Amino acid sequence: MRQSQLFTKTRKHSPTDEVAKNAQLLIRAGFIHKEMAGVYSLLPLGLRTIKKIESIIREEMNALGGQEVELTALQDKQLWQKTDRWSDELVDVWFKTKLQSGGELGLSFTHEEPLTAIMAEYVSSYRDLPLSVYQFQTKFRNETRAKSGIMRGREFLMKDLYSFSRTQAEHDAFYEKAGVAYGKIFSRVGLGDKTYMTFASGGSFSKFSHEFQTLSDVGEDTIFVDEIKKVAINKEVYGDAVLESLGLNKDTLVEKKAIEVGNIFSLGTKFSEPLKLSFKNESGTETPVIMGSYGIGLGRLMGVVVETLSDDAGIVWPASIAPFDVHLIRLGDSEGTMRQADELYESLKSSGVEVLYDDRGEQAGTKFADADLIGIPLRLVVSDKTVAAGQVEAKNRATGETIMWGEQDAHNGSVQEYILGLKKQLA
Amino acid sequence: MRQSQLFTKTRKHSPTDEVAKNAQLLIRAGFIHKEMAGVYSLLPLGLRTIKKIESIIREEMNALGGQEVELTALQDKQLWQKTDRWSDELVDVWFKTKLQSGGELGLSFTHEEPLTAIMAEYVSSYRDLPLSVYQFQTKFRNETRAKSGIMRGREFLMKDLYSFSRTQAEHDAFYEKAGVAYGKIFSRVGLGDKTYMTFASGGSFSKFSHEFQTLSDVGEDTIFVDEIKKVAINKEVYGDAVLESLGLNKDTLVEKKAIEVGNIFSLGTKFSEPLKLSFKNESGTETPVIMGSYGIGLGRLMGVVVETLSDDAGIVWPASIAPFDVHLIRLGDSEGTMRQADELYESLKSSGVEVLYDDRGEQAGTKFADADLIGIPLRLVVSDKTVAAGQVEAKNRATGETIMWGEQDAHNGSVQEYILGLKKQLA
Repeated sequence: MRQSQLFTKTRKHSPTDEVAKNAQLLIRAGFIHKEMAGVYSLLPLGLRTIKKIESIIREEMNALGGQEVELTALQDKQLWQKTDRWSDELVDVWFKTKLQSGGELGLSFTHEEPLTAIMAEYVSSYRDLPLSVYQFQTKFRNETRAKSGIMRGREFLMKDLYSFSRTQAEHDAFYEKAGVAYGKIFSRVGLGDKTYMTFASGGSFSKFSHEFQTLSDVGEDTIFVDEIKKVAINKEVYGDAVLESLGLNKDTLVEKKAIEVGNIFSLGTKFSEPLKLSFKNESGTETPVIMGSYGIGLGRLMGVVVETLSDDAGIVWPASIAPFDVHLIRLGDSEGTMRQADELYESLKSSGVEVLYDDRGEQAGTKFADADLIGIPLRLVVSDKTVAAGQVEAKNRATGETIMWGEQDAHNGSVQEYILGLKKQLA
Repeated sequence: MRQSQLFTKTRKHSPTDEVAKNAQLLIRAGFIHKEMAGVYSLLPLGLRTIKKIESIIREEMNALGGQEVELTALQDKQLWQKTDRWSDELVDVWFKTKLQSGGELGLSFTHEEPLTAIMAEYVSSYRDLPLSVYQFQTKFRNETRAKSGIMRGREFLMKDLYSFSRTQAEHDAFYEKAGVAYGKIFSRVGLGDKTYMTFASGGSFSKFSHEFQTLSDVGEDTIFVDEIKKVAINKEVYGDAVLESLGLNKDTLVEKKAIEVGNIFSLGTKFSEPLKLSFKNESGTETPVIMGSYGIGLGRLMGVVVETLSDDAGIVWPASIAPFDVHLIRLGDSEGTMRQADELYESLKSSGVEVLYDDRGEQAGTKFADADLIGIPLRLVVSDKTVAAGQVEAKNRATGETIMWGEQDAHNGSVQEYILGLKKQLA
């Protein structure tokens, strides 16, 4: 799109009460707007990035056989009393509200209860299983502290998948496949190198759960990383017996700060028993369903990418989730330059490249600083100088590498090819 | 997808407390799940239909130049006090909640206030305008009565667009274009014939607002329709003076029940003045922005389609928003029939047709009844009989028309062509 028409503008400063780097950069670049602590609106650039993250996750969830639904925020008290998760003493993140016609409601902080209740209406026989169901849905959490920008929200978009299996072996097989899918997701959004499958505390139904932790100095978790084996242990379960059971050695583990970008959790029959989700097995015996849950916060993921991949000049988006593929910058307003920049914009668009076209009448310094802040992977410059030389200048935001393409080459595939190359590195 | 893998099943009955036909049919067919009165989750079939409605609306909003954002549900009390819309005495649909760390929050029932506040941070000059911004976002309304199924929800997905103009003339021109876009949307989802642009009460900044009203016996509104001019008047503004000003004649108007599927509204400076959204005009004078709002509830639209287009056997989806293009039904389990049905499923999928493939071991009567209830526009049957005849049987859900295609024709384009034809009728 033409940047002159984009309603957001970059800013020199973020709100003074915003202390997290991820939110500071995203606000300054015009991706998000802070409504209050822990509550951020998505502006056009931010929504584009979130939709790309959503597409990547959806592809991987569909590949697992997941069926997509969308449950509600408003929650019925009676349902959550059945699993003993209604009381504010037991669950400290509820937002609650009241119906005018009488009765208390909650705003969902997770969806095990309502989905288990739905599945109980449809599952009755072993023939109905196994199943997995997922959604992209807004969660509400009444956090007392919300100072990590979009990495810890009071309202945030989450992908949550739930699995329903007949046997522990069937559950374990799905759980492992889900772990592999999660690894792919974090690689595809550009966090592969920094993200570790991490053993964490498990609850009543399994010894461990698994977190996906991305190394970051501002992370709230401490993990011990084995860089060779590409696994880690959360400090909360770190100890000699655990290390031995996992075949890990103290000497090869390095202590690091990290932030959780996803988790997978074996739930056993914790929800299926109280909510009566069971099936008749092949011998006709009523058997509770074995469940797992698998979560990724999309805003948090965007925040972690910004937090860990930005530099002093601004954000550095991986090509897979950048709001646009190319930031085309026009410098100068001579007729030839304007025409060539317009033509390049149109020809890139028509060949499927997503272009933010800086057609504004700003100075070169302003345009370059904005491009660095917004962080689109490839910057193209069409100026009086490049037009005279019959060239287009390209610069890679992440590496700083500069390339000169012949003007015709830029029209005829060099840009697409370069962008495809960047995306393939993440695939 | 294979129906044997879809986790929902059709049901004979909907919950006894569900009195609205739209929700009864959608629950029985497995599109939605009732969480409580006015609060419905979207199951896989329902989500597919909502996503198609969303795509159609997004295309039309983008064609108007709208920029997409996503604002938050949680709302700051201070902001709404500025426009005097916080008090429960003045706005009777708020759901309110409390932060643990102190302070009252509301759940958005609309978004004029937060969006106007955001725009005030970006708009300063006449060069920044005109603009239009839209979103698909969940609204919460604390309705005392919620007995119309998904046509009046306490929690529902809405498309709301807001326009920002410099002059009344600029606003009027956009408002008219938006009205045309709305007309296209209702035609594209299959309600064109039954939907009337309707004059309704306007508020302080214009004599009328415009509702889009779809004729329905269960509608809560009464309108007077001029079938020749294709316009209507809401009973609330009906009167001799109004008729005269609109050039309408009592004798050509017919009283009808209808349900509002969309509305467009001139807001003038009602929000821009208190929230200080202004711009310097060309002579340097600070001038308040002129606004409009344009809403469509997606769940309501889906409900109205079901309410008005269904028949005794079930739902009748327009091809543009059906969850699948084709319901392929396999009857019999002889090797040849199974192979031909599987092959047709694969070849349709690979040519871009969306197929629900009933590969279950149910009786023909059950499969046909399910297909009628679910309401996919084209039903294909592959049975021992059709295989023997080298044919595929096709039936149009809306008209009942039956066609026999040669098996090879079904593979080689007849199905796509037929579906395209159905979609073109709505374009």
